[in-house]
Amino acid sequence: MTETLSPTPRSTLGRHAERGRSERSELHDVLDAGLVCHLGFVADGAPVVLPTAYGRDGDVLYLHGSSGARYLTGDEMPACVTVTHLDGIVHARAVFSFSMNYRSAVAHGVARRVTDSDEKLRGLRVIVEHLTPGAWDHARPPTRRELAATSVLALDLGEASVKVRSGPPADEDDDVASDAAWAGVVPVRTVFGTPEPAPDLRATRDVPSHVADRADRATG
Amino acid sequence: MTETLSPTPRSTLGRHAERGRSERSELHDVLDAGLVCHLGFVADGAPVVLPTAYGRDGDVLYLHGSSGARYLTGDEMPACVTVTHLDGIVHARAVFSFSMNYRSAVAHGVARRVTDSDEKLRGLRVIVEHLTPGAWDHARPPTRRELAATSVLALDLGEASVKVRSGPPADEDDDVASDAAWAGVVPVRTVFGTPEPAPDLRATRDVPSHVADRADRATG
Repeated sequence: MTETLSPTPRSTLGRHAERGRSERSELHDVLDAGLVCHLGFVADGAPVVLPTAYGRDGDVLYLHGSSGARYLTGDEMPACVTVTHLDGIVHARAVFSFSMNYRSAVAHGVARRVTDSDEKLRGLRVIVEHLTPGAWDHARPPTRRELAATSVLALDLGEASVKVRSGPPADEDDDVASDAAWAGVVPVRTVFGTPEPAPDLRATRDVPSHVADRADRATG
Repeated sequence: MTETLSPTPRSTLGRHAERGRSERSELHDVLDAGLVCHLGFVADGAPVVLPTAYGRDGDVLYLHGSSGARYLTGDEMPACVTVTHLDGIVHARAVFSFSMNYRSAVAHGVARRVTDSDEKLRGLRVIVEHLTPGAWDHARPPTRRELAATSVLALDLGEASVKVRSGPPADEDDDVASDAAWAGVVPVRTVFGTPEPAPDLRATRDVPSHVADRADRATG
């Protein structure tokens, strides 16, 4: 894939095109910082949007297909995957200029069902390690039966856009001069809390470092 | 609308149907606790998913239509609106049993462009007050020109589903007995930070209470 995102008609931004980012590394950053994506597809002519876990392996996105897979009758379907980080509520002097600070990535393409068992195992590992790095080697690996019961979808990141807004409100000069209202940003951040061991866990087991180290840190 | 959600085929849950909730009040709770929704629609036969601001007025969802509106050639389009809260990463003994704690609402229907100026003003107020309660009366109201430049979409909440997972991991008995790995939940929460006044704000203005009171509180 190229280093820059080459827009197609549907990955060309409409409103606020100045918020677009064109580097592939920026697409990767937004995707890597997320925990849940929203998978969109078409069922009986109508759109469906479902949240699901995902992970990135180079320029392939792997999705945990439990939710979407029941709609997937063949081996592939047109899909759109969106990852959004809300970074702040932007209070302007004028209601019209209220906004949000955010980072979002939108990937368009054809999601395919992963059927090869090696790729499925790799995709599942990518998804689990994305959700919680270090977990794959710590936990019991899937059996052949469990792997067969799992759906993994893959989406190439060939057609995608990234949009970022940051910084203070952008009021009209008249509104700034009039000093009509408070203006500024209320930051929003998503953080991990203190791990809560399962009630049936043996008390002698410490929280492993790959879990404990996340406490009180931002998710991305 | 009825007090309970009456499932249609597409609002009937597939996998993990036991996580479904059937009270309309639970749908409202999940929607009211969110800040950003993901709007799905179909453009040229392919799905598109875009993040946007929204608000609820009874059983009507109003969406800020800046993103989706350029795709809306007529006055309505089939849409799906999803709001997801990630509440925790669920670590199981077995990779296969890893999960997430979450609350999600999925609404299906036909989004219509709001053309009546009274309803548009009301919808916009609902959206702004949802994002930041108290802001509408504090900031300068929209002019007629600004209102005309704003797109608002409305979606009736007649067909929706709610799904919630909470609590500890659900490992197989064998995995619990084997004590193969740490298991538990890493909570995830989204919080407001300390308000950051705009650089060009007059220094003498205090942060108003509807903004200041949110600091360090969970978003929902």
